[in-house]
Amino acid sequence: MIIVLQSGSTDEQIAEVEGKVRELGYVPHTIRGEVRTVVAAVGDEVTHSSLEPLSHLPMVDRVLPVQKKYKLISRETQPETAVVRVGGVEFGSGQFQVIAGPCSVEGEEMLIDTARAVRDAGATILRGGAFKPRTSPYSFQGLGQQGLAYLDKAKEVTGLPVVTELVSVADIDAVCRTADMIQIGARNALNYALLEAAADTGKPILLKRGMSATVEEWLLAAEYIAKRGNGNVILCERGIRTYETATRNTLDLGAVCVAKRESRLPVIVDPSHGAGRWDLIEPLSRAAAAIGADGIIVEVHPNPAVALSDGDQQIEFDTFARLMKELRPFVEAAGMELAGAGNVAAAT
Amino acid sequence: MIIVLQSGSTDEQIAEVEGKVRELGYVPHTIRGEVRTVVAAVGDEVTHSSLEPLSHLPMVDRVLPVQKKYKLISRETQPETAVVRVGGVEFGSGQFQVIAGPCSVEGEEMLIDTARAVRDAGATILRGGAFKPRTSPYSFQGLGQQGLAYLDKAKEVTGLPVVTELVSVADIDAVCRTADMIQIGARNALNYALLEAAADTGKPILLKRGMSATVEEWLLAAEYIAKRGNGNVILCERGIRTYETATRNTLDLGAVCVAKRESRLPVIVDPSHGAGRWDLIEPLSRAAAAIGADGIIVEVHPNPAVALSDGDQQIEFDTFARLMKELRPFVEAAGMELAGAGNVAAAT
Amino acid sequence: MIIVLQSGSTDEQIAEVEGKVRELGYVPHTIRGEVRTVVAAVGDEVTHSSLEPLSHLPMVDRVLPVQKKYKLISRETQPETAVVRVGGVEFGSGQFQVIAGPCSVEGEEMLIDTARAVRDAGATILRGGAFKPRTSPYSFQGLGQQGLAYLDKAKEVTGLPVVTELVSVADIDAVCRTADMIQIGARNALNYALLEAAADTGKPILLKRGMSATVEEWLLAAEYIAKRGNGNVILCERGIRTYETATRNTLDLGAVCVAKRESRLPVIVDPSHGAGRWDLIEPLSRAAAAIGADGIIVEVHPNPAVALSDGDQQIEFDTFARLMKELRPFVEAAGMELAGAGNVAAAT
Amino acid sequence: MIIVLQSGSTDEQIAEVEGKVRELGYVPHTIRGEVRTVVAAVGDEVTHSSLEPLSHLPMVDRVLPVQKKYKLISRETQPETAVVRVGGVEFGSGQFQVIAGPCSVEGEEMLIDTARAVRDAGATILRGGAFKPRTSPYSFQGLGQQGLAYLDKAKEVTGLPVVTELVSVADIDAVCRTADMIQIGARNALNYALLEAAADTGKPILLKRGMSATVEEWLLAAEYIAKRGNGNVILCERGIRTYETATRNTLDLGAVCVAKRESRLPVIVDPSHGAGRWDLIEPLSRAAAAIGADGIIVEVHPNPAVALSDGDQQIEFDTFARLMKELRPFVEAAGMELAGAGNVAAAT
Repeated sequence: MIIVLQSGSTDEQIAEVEGKVRELGYVPHTIRGEVRTVVAAVGDEVTHSSLEPLSHLPMVDRVLPVQKKYKLISRETQPETAVVRVGGVEFGSGQFQVIAGPCSVEGEEMLIDTARAVRDAGATILRGGAFKPRTSPYSFQGLGQQGLAYLDKAKEVTGLPVVTELVSVADIDAVCRTADMIQIGARNALNYALLEAAADTGKPILLKRGMSATVEEWLLAAEYIAKRGNGNVILCERGIRTYETATRNTLDLGAVCVAKRESRLPVIVDPSHGAGRWDLIEPLSRAAAAIGADGIIVEVHPNPAVALSDGDQQIEFDTFARLMKELRPFVEAAGMELAGAGNVAAAT
Repeated sequence: MIIVLQSGSTDEQIAEVEGKVRELGYVPHTIRGEVRTVVAAVGDEVTHSSLEPLSHLPMVDRVLPVQKKYKLISRETQPETAVVRVGGVEFGSGQFQVIAGPCSVEGEEMLIDTARAVRDAGATILRGGAFKPRTSPYSFQGLGQQGLAYLDKAKEVTGLPVVTELVSVADIDAVCRTADMIQIGARNALNYALLEAAADTGKPILLKRGMSATVEEWLLAAEYIAKRGNGNVILCERGIRTYETATRNTLDLGAVCVAKRESRLPVIVDPSHGAGRWDLIEPLSRAAAAIGADGIIVEVHPNPAVALSDGDQQIEFDTFARLMKELRPFVEAAGMELAGAGNVAAAT
Repeated sequence: MIIVLQSGSTDEQIAEVEGKVRELGYVPHTIRGEVRTVVAAVGDEVTHSSLEPLSHLPMVDRVLPVQKKYKLISRETQPETAVVRVGGVEFGSGQFQVIAGPCSVEGEEMLIDTARAVRDAGATILRGGAFKPRTSPYSFQGLGQQGLAYLDKAKEVTGLPVVTELVSVADIDAVCRTADMIQIGARNALNYALLEAAADTGKPILLKRGMSATVEEWLLAAEYIAKRGNGNVILCERGIRTYETATRNTLDLGAVCVAKRESRLPVIVDPSHGAGRWDLIEPLSRAAAAIGADGIIVEVHPNPAVALSDGDQQIEFDTFARLMKELRPFVEAAGMELAGAGNVAAAT
Repeated sequence: MIIVLQSGSTDEQIAEVEGKVRELGYVPHTIRGEVRTVVAAVGDEVTHSSLEPLSHLPMVDRVLPVQKKYKLISRETQPETAVVRVGGVEFGSGQFQVIAGPCSVEGEEMLIDTARAVRDAGATILRGGAFKPRTSPYSFQGLGQQGLAYLDKAKEVTGLPVVTELVSVADIDAVCRTADMIQIGARNALNYALLEAAADTGKPILLKRGMSATVEEWLLAAEYIAKRGNGNVILCERGIRTYETATRNTLDLGAVCVAKRESRLPVIVDPSHGAGRWDLIEPLSRAAAAIGADGIIVEVHPNPAVALSDGDQQIEFDTFARLMKELRPFVEAAGMELAGAGNVAAAT
């Protein structure tokens, strides 16, 4: 860490800071600048206490950390991208994967219809929420166990692996019986107890970025999972909260680039939540391909205008099929391969 | 809800919207304006499905909800402020309560010293984290059960009721044995499974606002608790995430005023997290009193410069004692009474 | 506008609101809902006073505007995209234009070298700042008139039209002599006096979105220009200010899509400011093409590591040439044509 | 500045960075840490080029500035608070000043009535906009020169000094004839050309914080003025733009504290824009007094429900008079004196 002193600090004051730095296990190196004196504290910031509390000392102006706090997921530690397998589907090895399905599982028929439609259009994983975290306690909260049973059925019928959200440790066994990948949603993205419990199942984890999480917090959430011995994490950018109201969230594609540079995890994009508007899903999906994301997750519903949750950000089967067709040249221009071609061929 | 149509919508299109509105259980009233036609949909928005998915219809421009989604905690439903009792301490009946203690329980001696110091200066409730949600998995995570045992001891020695954070349903029994009030932290503020589990204990809940929660989301989180039959909720503003970096968070006192107008719950302010800078705790505490908050929660540590967590936002005993003295005229000018005077008298 | 009343409003109160609505020139239509009564006020919101001050009446809960405030630039008014010509270069007619050049004009040689390099790689317009608005008064403020003279020279040598920023009405004649398009920067994006002065020159205007401007404010800034009779406006998304610090700004591609749907103006993207990191310029440029933007504006410098301004977000000649090559398939997949091919052919 | 190198940087790479640092006029001091090597560059960051472009070098991870960029207004340079005089009214010498008046000057009578009412309640300066920067070009833009004439009249009648906004250099002479203090509004807060022109008039400047300006940017805007030799700057916090929509802006009182610690300028608070809701003006004004601000600026209108601009954030005469009465104990508890007592006495 770098401790920036107030201008005019005396030798005694500098010595006091050096003493505190040593006390906390670091080795101080003092550099007297023209305007400011700084004390560089040498030592591993991850394993030592933070020096930020030294801002209590009257001669300390600021304390600047210099080290990154994530290690296991860092590209610095291990440069090659991690490959995460979900059923037979690979993320991180050059294939662009499309996860699709309804926001909520609303019934057996609508789910199976959707699963078939998205598979036939080229999706490789089925999404669908059985447990729904909703802002209002009066909104539809998902079908729960029954929803999981429908997902089992849809998996059986279509052969697609399934990702579904875990919102409570209480549901973990039930969710694990059905899910090929566990989703941690934005509201629970900093719920470390849930992250650790999910990690311990050994299942791949789809980790959404928190509503207002920095890239660093997002990567450290992934580090929590990796630290439990589960490196099968896929990061998912889903828009952040900003002042703009024309879109529900602001999709932060720059953060996807940064996450891919900093970490070795695959990163996918959620254009449905990313804008919260069905009419922006197609262009934002193309943009996700263009920046080199490893895939997208899209909400698809047989009749969005009457969906029980988030109807305004789900698209219809036709729109999804068109999206998939449009996507291919962007995926290929980005040097990747659009997975799911086999599905499409089989369906045609 | 109000459905705003695209300009130039035809009679057939208007009829189609009216049909969908009826289908979803509302009664449509159409008003043809000079520039826009709007369809007002009459019906209880809380119990009916949202009409927002109607934005899928090509002639629909926007859908505007008009109703508030919280009921049980609403001041509209019940105008008088709820009184929440924690041990013998009352929030909402005109007393300004000061909750104080260390960020984390770091040991028995430091905790008891702090508890005594804050009680003698006028604090009425002791705070202290045993389970700490930390951004990095490598940071100090709290003493856990041992921390709770120290809190029991401090309660016994000082007579102060205790508030401590619950981060996982797994710890709920242990936390309940010690806590007179359960804190739900900012990271778990939208973790509805945890909110419901905490609600079911019947304990008073100190509900922090999420890092980027709107006032509406914050109040709806409280509604989740109230809907389980537990109306003993105290709201706590702790700063929101904004672009400003001179302070760790931006304390949103306007939101405190809005929360007090909209809901009938007591609202307190956390100036420690609110700015994330120990040197702003005093002025922001005075501001909290000035706007009519029901109290504050302040982090106090015997030696913040070496604290194991958040040392840069904790204050020393002396500073806390000075803060308490300064606070009184502001509390009284706001027409409230500074609780804890008995403690101070006994200590002197 | 829609006026939402407090629940429990009496008939007298409703009549009072209706009276005020009439007084302000609107026709009231009252709809008594199950939970709320709303008064729909029929009348042109753009030409009448806002009803928002009615929130002063005790029985009024909220006032919701329903109408959009922009007209001249609205796609609703005129559905086809405006074509804006800058020199011989067209925006809005299906060609993807690349504007490139240094952040600041630092000297004649560096400018001409850069102009040649970007033209030969396919750029069609030269950018370069002569008057630089800098956060610190001690930073390099641009070469001013001398900078304009160098731009004239570069235009003569390369044949590229020039866009340069106007920061003060005092410089308007000088800037107009050189500029084929006037840039209004993010800091002046809501400086309406400058917008109007720029509009009155009749030159095409490159209008950057303000640092924290909503899409609505951005479009209304364009409406200010159009209202002076100058419809030659190109909108430019350049990243917005959010809490995220991994990038200097957060590029908001969703807003580009919304701006294109709402307005009929061409919209381009500035990936240099959009992230503030040179290493993200390539992927974000590809994303801009993928969503259907009409072009990009990129900062290019012969030696960014010693640039006098914003060196960390400028790219070198080689990187720019690579970017241009990579861009083509994305532009074409988006159904557009990459302009500047003639330049490249001539250069090879 | 501190240059943080990539881990694993070689001796040659370190030497290259040291070379560049020297080339740019700084003296490098290299510290090899356990995890990271950092190069501290000694030299005045204000007068030298930024080293941030060194992020282009492949072995450079990040560059951290350590120095503050403001000097003339810094409390570090000169510890005592600047006293700024406007007419006979002093800011910065322990008196709490209340500036009040309508958002816009709408006519002679309404202005004089308001001026009398606010003076008699204890306001010491009259505010009123003659030139109004409005988001929509179709909104009321102020009475211009006629508005200034009314302000002259109101000044003559009430003896109150006047502050009014300058939005364009073209109006500067006219505004200066009337204004005792020039207001720079939030939209022009980073319009440096306007700041410099205003500075050169020698008049005191009321400098609002930009909508999304950091404290640093706000102080540097003041530094622009001071650098022209005009140190008579009063800073004004008026709320920042955040994701929260319950209030129009988020009043950032923590920033007021930081601005007062960092700079020696008086700082006042605008509770009208700070929340954009008339019903929060009273509590937020009390909070402003409680944190030690040097005053407030409040919008007051004879009949806000029909105001031509911002009626929803203006208060009536009675409310203003009550606010002034309520304010006194808070101002006094903060160790300041409520100015304007003479006005009140004379009026009674």
